[in-house]
Amino acid sequence: MKIIQKEITLQKKSRGFHLITSEILSLIPEINKIKKGIAQLFILHTSASLTINENADPTVRSDMETYFNTIVPEDADYFEHTLEGTDDMTSHIKSSIIGSSLMIPVTNGTFNLGTWQGIYLCEHRNRAGRRRIVITVLGEDESN
Amino acid sequence: MKIIQKEITLQKKSRGFHLITSEILSLIPEINKIKKGIAQLFILHTSASLTINENADPTVRSDMETYFNTIVPEDADYFEHTLEGTDDMTSHIKSSIIGSSLMIPVTNGTFNLGTWQGIYLCEHRNRAGRRRIVITVLGEDESN
Amino acid sequence: MKIIQKEITLQKKSRGFHLITSEILSLIPEINKIKKGIAQLFILHTSASLTINENADPTVRSDMETYFNTIVPEDADYFEHTLEGTDDMTSHIKSSIIGSSLMIPVTNGTFNLGTWQGIYLCEHRNRAGRRRIVITVLGEDESN
Repeated sequence: MKIIQKEITLQKKSRGFHLITSEILSLIPEINKIKKGIAQLFILHTSASLTINENADPTVRSDMETYFNTIVPEDADYFEHTLEGTDDMTSHIKSSIIGSSLMIPVTNGTFNLGTWQGIYLCEHRNRAGRRRIVITVLGEDESN
Repeated sequence: MKIIQKEITLQKKSRGFHLITSEILSLIPEINKIKKGIAQLFILHTSASLTINENADPTVRSDMETYFNTIVPEDADYFEHTLEGTDDMTSHIKSSIIGSSLMIPVTNGTFNLGTWQGIYLCEHRNRAGRRRIVITVLGEDESN
Repeated sequence: MKIIQKEITLQKKSRGFHLITSEILSLIPEINKIKKGIAQLFILHTSASLTINENADPTVRSDMETYFNTIVPEDADYFEHTLEGTDDMTSHIKSSIIGSSLMIPVTNGTFNLGTWQGIYLCEHRNRAGRRRIVITVLGEDESN
């Protein structure tokens, strides 16, 4: 049984939904030794989130952005926590709807995803810095 | 420390919210050897999702279907990703709101759920095939 | 590799979003021996939920309550599961949107959270009892 844990920092992203499967894998090459287990991605921020969704058509990502902007409207007059702008409280809400953490099975050295699945970074702020993620992998390696 | 990992395939479901606790347990009998640990259910699709909710009254499941159809409307005119029908993009959105993965504690050989909790498969497509799930259990077995 | 698993009971909370990071840590002192790993918090109920969000400004928590009451309206006429009141079905829905379970990385004996992150108990019922949570920690302790 092996535990790999490290903090990674993603490249800066614009507001919206971004496919980051390759970027994540490039930052955690150690995963290729894990035969079976699970990986956690945990984002250390409350105004961006992580999800699994369709990995092929860019309009899925733009439709996601449009949808969440509609359902969490920046012009709602009832928000009090708006010191950092209209995208402040709405980003916190999107973060709790979509989630701060992903658990992904690991099989034969890589993420065990369906054919059409990819990892998304959902950037909810208009201007955000680089986002940090703690990756923890628990699994059996080749020596087990 | 033991890791069990296998892929299972559920029986085909109609659109809606379905209680699948027994079906899952019947497909992972190996869990009965795990004294304490956690199990992950990870669905390999982006148009169906998994959640934990009330396990007794069928109107909870039908109300869930009604609610999510209301909040993610198929007649929204702003969706671009609609090639496979009006239930295409909406299914992807529901999948990210509800989630692709469940983590459940395992205690004394079975899921450690509250009295009123059950596992739901949320089928968002009008016509879907059989859904595949990767189950990973990490825990101590009797030999520990 | 060590697995800690125990059930804890939180102090009773009023309806709304509550910061519980300290309360959780006080109930799981054993975590201070875990050098690296992950912890799961799993709530044994279907009308309250758990999330990670901003840990400083109380208006984030009150805005969350206002938002989820708006998006999951108690006066919707289409709900059938309302035997226990208008906050019955809406609590189940909020529970599936926000989630019943949290996974949090553990590093050097405590939760590895971002500077502004805290653990929330989201109490969706008007009158709820004390909520029970199963905590499972998987990790390496000092003896590894």
